[in-house]
Parts: sequence; structure tokens; C-alpha cells
Amino acid sequence: MINFVTSPEEYRHWKLDIADAVATLGMDVREEETLGPGYKLKLNSYDLGVDIELADAIERLRFEYPGVKVVVVTSLKPRIFCAGANIYMLGSSSHAAKVNFCKFTNETRCAIEDDSRHSGRRYIAALNGTASGGGYELAIACDEIYLVDDGNAAVSLPEVPLLGVLPGTGGLTRLVDKRKVRRDRADIFSTLAEGIRGKRAKDWGLIDDSFPTSKFQHAIAARVDQLVSKSDVPSGLTGIKLHPLECEETADARVYKYVSLHLNRDRRCADLTLYGPEGNLPEELQSIWGLGDAWWPLRVFRELDNALLHLRVNEPEIGLVCLRTKGDIDNVLAIDKTLGAHQGHWLVRETVLLMARVLRRLDLTAKSFFALIEPGSCFAGSLLELALAADRTYMLNDPEQQNELAVSDVNAGALPMNNGLTRLQSRFLAEPVRVAQILDYRGRFNSEAAEEAGLVTVAPDSLDWDDEIRLAIEERTSLSPDALTGMEASLRFAGPETQETKIFGRLTAWQNWIFQRPNAVGEHGALTNYGKPTQPKFDFRRT
Amino acid sequence: MINFVTSPEEYRHWKLDIADAVATLGMDVREEETLGPGYKLKLNSYDLGVDIELADAIERLRFEYPGVKVVVVTSLKPRIFCAGANIYMLGSSSHAAKVNFCKFTNETRCAIEDDSRHSGRRYIAALNGTASGGGYELAIACDEIYLVDDGNAAVSLPEVPLLGVLPGTGGLTRLVDKRKVRRDRADIFSTLAEGIRGKRAKDWGLIDDSFPTSKFQHAIAARVDQLVSKSDVPSGLTGIKLHPLECEETADARVYKYVSLHLNRDRRCADLTLYGPEGNLPEELQSIWGLGDAWWPLRVFRELDNALLHLRVNEPEIGLVCLRTKGDIDNVLAIDKTLGAHQGHWLVRETVLLMARVLRRLDLTAKSFFALIEPGSCFAGSLLELALAADRTYMLNDPEQQNELAVSDVNAGALPMNNGLTRLQSRFLAEPVRVAQILDYRGRFNSEAAEEAGLVTVAPDSLDWDDEIRLAIEERTSLSPDALTGMEASLRFAGPETQETKIFGRLTAWQNWIFQRPNAVGEHGALTNYGKPTQPKFDFRRT
Repeated sequence: MINFVTSPEEYRHWKLDIADAVATLGMDVREEETLGPGYKLKLNSYDLGVDIELADAIERLRFEYPGVKVVVVTSLKPRIFCAGANIYMLGSSSHAAKVNFCKFTNETRCAIEDDSRHSGRRYIAALNGTASGGGYELAIACDEIYLVDDGNAAVSLPEVPLLGVLPGTGGLTRLVDKRKVRRDRADIFSTLAEGIRGKRAKDWGLIDDSFPTSKFQHAIAARVDQLVSKSDVPSGLTGIKLHPLECEETADARVYKYVSLHLNRDRRCADLTLYGPEGNLPEELQSIWGLGDAWWPLRVFRELDNALLHLRVNEPEIGLVCLRTKGDIDNVLAIDKTLGAHQGHWLVRETVLLMARVLRRLDLTAKSFFALIEPGSCFAGSLLELALAADRTYMLNDPEQQNELAVSDVNAGALPMNNGLTRLQSRFLAEPVRVAQILDYRGRFNSEAAEEAGLVTVAPDSLDWDDEIRLAIEERTSLSPDALTGMEASLRFAGPETQETKIFGRLTAWQNWIFQRPNAVGEHGALTNYGKPTQPKFDFRRT
Repeated sequence: MINFVTSPEEYRHWKLDIADAVATLGMDVREEETLGPGYKLKLNSYDLGVDIELADAIERLRFEYPGVKVVVVTSLKPRIFCAGANIYMLGSSSHAAKVNFCKFTNETRCAIEDDSRHSGRRYIAALNGTASGGGYELAIACDEIYLVDDGNAAVSLPEVPLLGVLPGTGGLTRLVDKRKVRRDRADIFSTLAEGIRGKRAKDWGLIDDSFPTSKFQHAIAARVDQLVSKSDVPSGLTGIKLHPLECEETADARVYKYVSLHLNRDRRCADLTLYGPEGNLPEELQSIWGLGDAWWPLRVFRELDNALLHLRVNEPEIGLVCLRTKGDIDNVLAIDKTLGAHQGHWLVRETVLLMARVLRRLDLTAKSFFALIEPGSCFAGSLLELALAADRTYMLNDPEQQNELAVSDVNAGALPMNNGLTRLQSRFLAEPVRVAQILDYRGRFNSEAAEEAGLVTVAPDSLDWDDEIRLAIEERTSLSPDALTGMEASLRFAGPETQETKIFGRLTAWQNWIFQRPNAVGEHGALTNYGKPTQPKFDFRRT
């Protein structure tokens, strides 16, 4: 079982150093400490275990060290920055493992950009040696890239020429969409195994600058000073500690404080329930800060994140997740009100940004989601996003039982999808006026009102409820899981496309296609044959 | 060998009826007249042969019947509109054949929308019976959809539940992006094999209206009359005849009048040369109309289109196409000037729109393209688009020989890519100001100026030219063709995404992925097992 919980004291591959306003994320991968057997993490190459630490470090920076203004991503090994995803790991992984690995890595790269865009921390990739493949893809997720000019160091994307696969962790997309490298130059760069060095790399926009070895550290330090001095991140903030998540694990359940996950493996579905906040909710910043990571919204969404990652990686046969909530709608709305009232405060902002990232993780999870709204639930405001993220929403219509949902200001923009729209906007592309109407209505929606407003898919009555839900679950879990993955990846992201949707849609789908092709993974494929005395043999028919 | 040339007299599956301003495209597929062995085209299901006729009919309408204001797409069979792509054909096709079939079908659907958007013809899908799968995808490409209410007829996308593949010919994308069907309803619709009828289909936005059998023809006729009366397509236009393309075919060449294609199969590359217009170019509408389909821009781009389709489908091992032009730059610029001067005339407009579609076909062709600019070439204006569409452009820099290129007004917007940008805009995403500078410069660019302006990738001198081109070709054709397909599909479409790029990028890539998965095409896959007594067996691990 792959465990996503870690902390700096446990890191094996990264060193997180904080010096006032500057954090240094130093990559120093231990060759032997792999997540699986059969490969060594040479030359700062990485597997999922390395990226889990990186994701943790980025998350932790935001909560534990809010005063950090600049993050330097570099290598602690001489003459090599990072050789990218480990090829032997990729070559020996199952298709599903490759796909999940790339998705998580992509999310981590996006988390860097999310921190930069929304929290103002600047990320500098200080390439003290060659950055190839995923190493350059990590660099290109940073705001600025500086490469040492030691006569040898290069940036490269050798996936196509060496491995017959794509730079699929955002590489191709960020090349032409983020750094806007001219497409013919991007073509040359992406087919040139040895990569591009110094001046040419700068001229083409692949890096921001290069410096000779003797001046490299000084130049980086000078640029860091510049960025610190013009940063709008306030000085002197005191963070909160992110403690390890507590989770009671049994054979078919994971029970956290506010989240419980029950696996019905024989039926290929899981029940994922979120529990609303209890009473005595803090309204003042001092008490929120005092609660730290025990504060309900932070805790429940961290737990949800962990449950989703667990489902993705450790429970491949679960095809459908039934989302439920339990608790008091008023309490959820009170939390949302507090989130809105203090949105200018760093801890509240970071909490909301984390909630948004976790919901985007849900959007990108290759499982079907049905939201089930029953009496006693609290699908309101931030938790209503779960229902809006679900592929379908069923709401019990029983006049004898109170069953309601509600919107809050949080639904109006704080939790955007990767397409840049809110989930309400994505839902009502055909009738944008409905979004405003729904957001304006501050009462509760009972099942009839919710159905009328278009907020739920079906509202069966109590006579039909059990059968309808059972049949819907049985039917869903009987369908081809691959077709569902492709269908959901299309239907969930209507409307505009962004760099993120291009990475997770277009680029990822092509990479997944290639990850199945004999030219990459067959007996004679390039990925399979890498590092072996045999040469790849291609079927040259173009598709 | 698959032949893309046809004409209404040869149609086996469609009947094109013209009655003044109204064209009726009647589908009446002959079961036995398939393109390949082993299947029958029952229930108006289709294979590539059926779609080649449809594509021809739509193209022909625009040139031969420019006065048509409304096109009714319907079935000549009772109680069935169209059952979609033939499942047994798909089940028995190679992966490459499926991919090419879907791509061409997608382009045909887009051609309907192109006609509607740019030429103002309104397409009505008159569903006199059930439209399922690709049948509904054809309908959803039309402007309006009317379904008979006979107690049985439905619209459906049964691919996911019945076949384990996607409605991949634009279906999922157009559902949520064009018709903006709410995503949870789209989810239900796309998993419901039997589809949705009458009122519910209308309420959900899947159709525009439904009428009882007794009133159906009358209602369609009434709607057609309405659309005719408010059409802005002028009345009384006289079309030109599109004659069959003349092409001399040999074992390794196809020689048209203005296009020649030479295949170097042992080197997996082809030489595709376009010949510029000869002298005595018509400038007046009357002479252009008199030339008809012999007019250079129309003819050369029709020939290019045919050559591209031939390469895609009949020459799978050709991985790289070297694009060249031969002729007089002044003549090309004169043609472009004429295209601009008469852009308001239907024949000129249709010619430019066809040129744009052919160039988009090139953008979407899964072959690498290198443009080679040598003395005697005429990469100017409309033909410069070939160089801008290429993955790389090489231009000989020899002070002793004149070698130039030029832009024209045609490069400023008349030939947009699927992303909605011009090829110049896509090229200079990082420096939009360059686009205006280049368009403003009305002189010639020699190789140094072209390189300086960023219009070419490399400008080797005459000492290096032969070796550099030879090496570039050898290197390109040695790489994994699958990785190149995915790479080019990412690098060619930087910038914004549109319905078209979503269909050809995201949706198509997912479909191609699924088209390789054992759950669809394996021994126990759903596509393989369709119609057999055996049931599909799925590997339920979600990826």
C-alpha cells in the first residue's frame, strides 16, 4: 500500500531549509530508497515516493512557513539537477501505475503554480546541473529557470527520441503555452536527446538565464534578494503545524476524524462520507490560528485529499464512490461565513486554496462519483461543491423528512475548477443566469426546489429511493471502466480550456495512449529496451 | 486502396436532392456495398465509404448549389435515421483504421458546422426514426434537430454502455459544449443504451423539438420555409461544377495538375510539391467563374486535400512529408490579391474556406511535415501557410541564388487554425507584436530576413544544406511514430482551445486510448463481443 503521509523529518529525498523569507528545496535522492523493487534512483531520478515528499513540502511551506517569499528548487548533488522520472521504474510499472504516477506528479507541478499565482511565493529553479525529462518539467513549473553554464549542463526533454513516450507531466504543454516557445523550436527541442545549453536555451526561451559555475550561486542569491525585496508576501507571519493525519485503518475502511471511507469491494463501490463541523465554531482569527490544523475546513479537506489518493492508487477496483455528508447545514454555512469574513488572512486564504485543490483532485479522479443527499446531510456551501463535482446527484424527496441543501458565497468563485469556472458555472453553461439566481437565494432548497433549480439530477421519493440508488450503482459498476474514464474526462470539463485542462486532458490522454502502444511498452518498445543492449524495433505505421 | 473521389452519380448510400433553396441529403445505405469485407451496413449504419460520400455532398453543395439556403439531413429508410458507425466494421478494423475513420468522420461533421457558420446555410437534422451513436453525432453537428415522436424513435449515445468505447466523433464534446446539456444529464444520457425520446429529449436540450408521425413532415417543411425566408444566402446564384480530380497514379507517385506526391517508402518519407499558378491569371469574377474548378487556388487545394487523405489512409508507413513549392511568388501574390478583392463573392469565399479546411486537415494529419524552401519556390501568402503549418521549416541561405518568401493579406485571418488563431499568431504567441510587423512588411524575405523574423526554423548555407536536410529526415523517420503523433498533437495547437481542438485533442486522444484497451478490443472486450452470444468480461481496475 502506498502511503501519502510524510513530513520533513521523514524525507529521504528532499531537504527543506528555511532561512527567513527564503526556502530551499534541495533534491538529494537516495538511490536505494525506492517505492518498488527493481530499480535505483540514480542521478536524482524519481518515483512516486520522491514526488510524495515534494508535494508534502510544497503544502507544508504554505501552512507552516507563510512568511517564505521565495522558494529555490535545486539539487544537492553536484553537476546534476534531476534526471526526471526513473525510466526503469516506468518500464517495469503497470499501465495504471504509470497513469497514476503521472497524474499525481502533474498535480504537484500545478500546486507549485497555484502557490505562485495565488499566494505570491516565487519559485526559482536553480539548475546546478542538467535537468532532463521530468527534471526540466519540474523546472518549467517554477516561475524562473536558471541554468549553470559549466560546458555540460543542459535542459532537455529526451522522452520522444530516447523512450518513445511524451514529456507528459506538463512538459509539451508548458513549453508552448506557458513559456510560449516557438512551435518549430519546441519541435527541435523535444526531439533532441542531448538537450540545449546556455545561450541557445536562453534565446529560445527555455530558461531565463545561465551563469558560469563560478558565478552561479552568487547570481541565484542576487536574484533571490531581488525577488524577496519586491515580494508582496508579508513578513513575520507565524505558521501552523500540519500534524500527520490520524486514520483508523481496517481491511475495508479508513476512518478519519471528519471523513470515513468504506469499501464494498465485492460491489466495486465505496462510501465516502464527510462529517460537518461540530458546535462552538471559531469566528475570530486568533481562535482559528489556535486550532491550527484541527480547524474543521482544513482538517476535513486534508482528510478527503488523503482518501482520494488512497482510492486512486490503492483501490483500483473501486469504480464508483458514493459521496455523502452528515451534519448541520448551519454549521457549514457558519464556517463558510468565517472563510469569507477573513479571506484576506493568510491562513484562511491557504485553507480555501487547499479546499479548491482537493476538489480539483476529485474532478480529476478516474472514478465515478454519485452524491447521495439524504436527511441529516449537510451539502451546503463548500460541501455542496462535492455534489456539484459528482457525475450525478440523487436527493431523497420525502415530505415527511427534512432534506435540504444550500449555497453560500464560497460557491461563487473561491473553489474554481481547472477550467477556470466555478462548478455552478460549468453546470449551467446553457443558462448562465441561473448561476446568479441560485447564488442570490439564501434560503434552503428542499428536494423539489433543488430539482427545479437544476442542482440535483434526480429526486426520487422514498418508495423508489432504495431501488433507484441500488440499480444506478449496479449499472454504473457494470460498465467498462476505461470508457467511463474517457467519458467523465470529457463531460466534467465543458467550457473553456486552460493550461491545466490541456495538461490533464489533451496531453495526458495522448500519453496514456502511447503508454499502451507496443512501440513504447512492447517487447521491442523503446521504454522497455532503454538501457538494454537490445535496440527498440518500431512498427513504423503512423496512426 | 481507399479512393476519396466520388460524385452524386456514383453515390451508393446518399441521395442529394435540390429543390430551389432547399437541399435534402437522404441517407439510404446499401447494406452490401461496404468498403471492406465481413460486415453489412444494416439500419443505415456507416463505414468510411458512406462518409466519403457525405463529405463529397457537403463540399459539392457549397460550390455547385450556392443558392441552397437550408439543408435537410434525413433518412430515406422508414423508422430509422441512422444507427451510427457500423460496429462489426469497427470490431474488425485495425487500430489505425479506426483512428483514421474517426478523424475523417470528425472532419466531415466540422465541415457541416463550417458551412453553417461561414456560408450561412442552415442544417436541419430531420430524424424520422432513431438516431443512435454516430447517427446522433451527425445530428448534433447540424444546427437544429427534430425527432419524430412515434412511440419508439429515440436519440442515443450507446457507445459506453454497449461497446465500451466513447461517442468519439464529437458526441461527448458537442453534448456539453455545443448544446450545453447539463453535465449530470449528459452523464445519464451517455450511459443509457436505449436513449431518450420526445419530450424528455427536448427538455434536456438533446433535440430542438419532436412531432408525432402524422405531423412530422409538415413540421419539418414549415421550419424549412421559415429558415429559407430569413436566410441571408442570396437567391439565384449559379454554381460551378466540381469535376473529378485528374491524377496520374504510379507505384510510388501521384501526379495531379498542380500537386505531385512522390513516395520514398524505403526511407519512410514523401515529397509533396505544390506548383504555383501560371500566367494570365484571372482578376475579374466573370473569368474566375468561367474557369470554375480549373481556377488555380481551388484546384491546387482540392488536389492537396486528396493527397493528404491518400497519405493518411493508404500510406501508413510514410512518417514524414517534405513540403515544397515551385513557381512564381508574384503569381501567388496576385491570386491572393484577387481572393481579397472579391472576398464578398460566394465563389471566392467558398474557395478560401476550402483552402482553410484543407490546411486544417494538414494540421491534423498524423505525419511530420518539414517545409523545404529552395530557389524557385513560391512560399508566399496562401502557400506560406504550408511552411507555417509545418513542424519545421528549412530555408536555403545561398547568396548566389535568389530564395525568398512573402506574406500577403491572406495570412492575416482568412485561413484560421482549429484553435481560432492564424498560423502566424500561433507561431508568435510569445511576441504578438511580430505578427503585425510581419504582416506590415510587403517586401520579400530572403533567408536571413526570414530567419531574423522567425518565419523559418533554420537557414543552412549551401555547403550544409544537403547534409542537414538528409540528417534531419533520417533522424525524424527513426523516431517512434506514436510518440511523434502525440508530440505534434500537443505542439501544433498552442494557445486557446475551441470545440474543434477539444474534439481532435481531448476526446480523440481518449478514444484512441480506449480503442487499444482490452476492455474494448481484447478477446473479451465489449466491442469485440458485440452481437455475439458471449458476454464481454471486463478488467474492472480503473485507470
